[in-house]
Amino acid sequence: MKLVCTQSELSTNLSLTSRAVPSRPTHPILANVLLHADAETNLVSLTAFDLSLGIRTSFSAEVLNSGTVAIPAKLLNDITSRLPEGEITLEDESGNQDNSVGAEGLIVTLTPKSGRYQVRAMGAEDFPELPVIEDAQVVYLPGGALIEGLRGSLFATSADETKQVLTGVHLTVKQDTLEFAATDGHRLAVVETTNESSDAEEAGAEIAPIEVTVPARALRELERMLAHSSDSDQLVALQFDQGQVVFEWQNQRLTSRTLEGQYPAYHQLIPRQFQRELILDRKQLVSALERIAVLADQKNNLVKMSIESEAQEVTLSCESQDVGSGRETISAQILGEDIEIAFNIKYLMEGLKTLPSTEIQMQLNTNLTPVIFTPLGGVKMTYLAMPVQLRN
Amino acid sequence: MKLVCTQSELSTNLSLTSRAVPSRPTHPILANVLLHADAETNLVSLTAFDLSLGIRTSFSAEVLNSGTVAIPAKLLNDITSRLPEGEITLEDESGNQDNSVGAEGLIVTLTPKSGRYQVRAMGAEDFPELPVIEDAQVVYLPGGALIEGLRGSLFATSADETKQVLTGVHLTVKQDTLEFAATDGHRLAVVETTNESSDAEEAGAEIAPIEVTVPARALRELERMLAHSSDSDQLVALQFDQGQVVFEWQNQRLTSRTLEGQYPAYHQLIPRQFQRELILDRKQLVSALERIAVLADQKNNLVKMSIESEAQEVTLSCESQDVGSGRETISAQILGEDIEIAFNIKYLMEGLKTLPSTEIQMQLNTNLTPVIFTPLGGVKMTYLAMPVQLRN
Repeated sequence: MKLVCTQSELSTNLSLTSRAVPSRPTHPILANVLLHADAETNLVSLTAFDLSLGIRTSFSAEVLNSGTVAIPAKLLNDITSRLPEGEITLEDESGNQDNSVGAEGLIVTLTPKSGRYQVRAMGAEDFPELPVIEDAQVVYLPGGALIEGLRGSLFATSADETKQVLTGVHLTVKQDTLEFAATDGHRLAVVETTNESSDAEEAGAEIAPIEVTVPARALRELERMLAHSSDSDQLVALQFDQGQVVFEWQNQRLTSRTLEGQYPAYHQLIPRQFQRELILDRKQLVSALERIAVLADQKNNLVKMSIESEAQEVTLSCESQDVGSGRETISAQILGEDIEIAFNIKYLMEGLKTLPSTEIQMQLNTNLTPVIFTPLGGVKMTYLAMPVQLRN
Repeated sequence: MKLVCTQSELSTNLSLTSRAVPSRPTHPILANVLLHADAETNLVSLTAFDLSLGIRTSFSAEVLNSGTVAIPAKLLNDITSRLPEGEITLEDESGNQDNSVGAEGLIVTLTPKSGRYQVRAMGAEDFPELPVIEDAQVVYLPGGALIEGLRGSLFATSADETKQVLTGVHLTVKQDTLEFAATDGHRLAVVETTNESSDAEEAGAEIAPIEVTVPARALRELERMLAHSSDSDQLVALQFDQGQVVFEWQNQRLTSRTLEGQYPAYHQLIPRQFQRELILDRKQLVSALERIAVLADQKNNLVKMSIESEAQEVTLSCESQDVGSGRETISAQILGEDIEIAFNIKYLMEGLKTLPSTEIQMQLNTNLTPVIFTPLGGVKMTYLAMPVQLRN
């Protein structure tokens, strides 16, 4: 294997791929990134796989000799990221493609314009294959819509590994829409984006609704990789079967196992009719909540919201006997009777920060039933927060 | 107590003062910042004191009623820093200056332009006085020179609390110079700056050399406060006696206990004559070391430096049997015979990063005696690093 590439291409792709390298590998080979150089296509691919999440990225290079070798990911990434811009030559010592011979003594040499680095590498044969889904249904989703959906849902997943299916985002692919849902049991975020598969020639005319729950960790990497792509309008191919999901675009590929278990029937949690409706300035509300949070921190993170329709005002307050109290009043457009309602301020803020509009709508019935927050205009997102009982 | 001030003044001064609030106060009162408002001068002072480090800052405000009150520092800082710009009114509930009466129920009310915050406060009478040094000698040092000296020495102090006097910077004030020294036993940094006391009318003509060792923690705060001051040419008054040191300028004051114990006679460690001298490009050297450090990390942080006078080149290298190897070659002006010498790469890099010039001089005798690094031009700084024995 021998190739010449730029420092920036190698470093950028290494840092993306390395995210799938486990910090405590169960097998030594998994601490490596698999580098494959192809002299015919002049493409270099990098693969990392922790047996759940797999990432493969590719970039152009001048490949003098084809070959495949497993190189310690952290070491290679740390060296490459510190190298000055310019060309780098990578070469393995044996100079032939059969790395199984003498893999024990395999050395990869990096030659940037100044200096020379040698890294002890491993043969490619022990590196596990990324999962491939054969004869699978393929849907094509616009990269921009994927990013929107991930941004509006990922934050609401559960961090509690014992909650299994709630640690992922539930994706539902229908004929014209793609829906993202996440809940940790206290709040729910749902984003509906357009599925432009029908525009893509490759996608057949009829798609049966597909549902799959993908671990948040894999989707965070997907979000990062898509944000990194130059072209946000590109179509991302999504393939899946029972246990696996594969996202693929340009020369990038991300595979992940899916989460098993029945995802909650969240649609039935969202009320359809409301006794009260408010329109609020989102940033003003978030700023006020951030200040009240200083006091709420001291007291179960509880914030009280008093909605006064005559004054067309919302007052946020928190009282902590031992420490002090705070109140903030902001104006709002209010329909419906006055009410006092309490929330966990952290859940409230996380959702409001993610809503992508200047003004937001808040809809509720009583102070013990789900409250819905939606953006006015832009992305179609629903954020549901459960109120907390007020103790008087 | 009642005053009106701007959010930015209150927040800035609170964040500076709060650095002296202990994270785990030995007495509840120490978790507070002491706010003193003076209606005659229209000045507000904030004081925090952990019994070792004390900080007092002052700023102008409209003081309607004089008074003093102790307010929980973290809470007040957290609220104030999140408030929008604009005027804030601060008032204590009793409305009189005698906080000892009913201190149990003392409440301070913050009224920004929107909202209203009440914080449970304490009477001022329990708050310890900042140390005052009476009849002390005073020297005046330019703020800029102090910053230069601190920047060039603080990094070399020991973080090991058992090393007592080495956890501080040793200050020596002479007639015309001010010297900063720090060592952790492995390396030594010395900065000599000009003492312009003689220009200051207030400072007498004759100063006996003064030596004092001040904890690094206090000097880091001093550096931060000085960097924050608008006027770097201002004179800082330095007062001291056996156990205390006080820095004072404009309306700012920092007090610290001094460290007891004999500071090492570091001057005798610095060689006066050298068999070898090099001139190197500092940034090029630091970049190369940062890359080699990736490999040195794996092997006792050891880097080998091969100095070749015929080629006028320095080669940095590190070999780690299990992992790999790296080498970097940079050009240099070299006088003296070839030599191989090894260093702890972390110590080397920390010192080189701090030297304030484009080109640096490296002077040495053998590969087991102290090596001196000095900037070419600018600040008068000496960095001494001990080589490490090369194992062949």
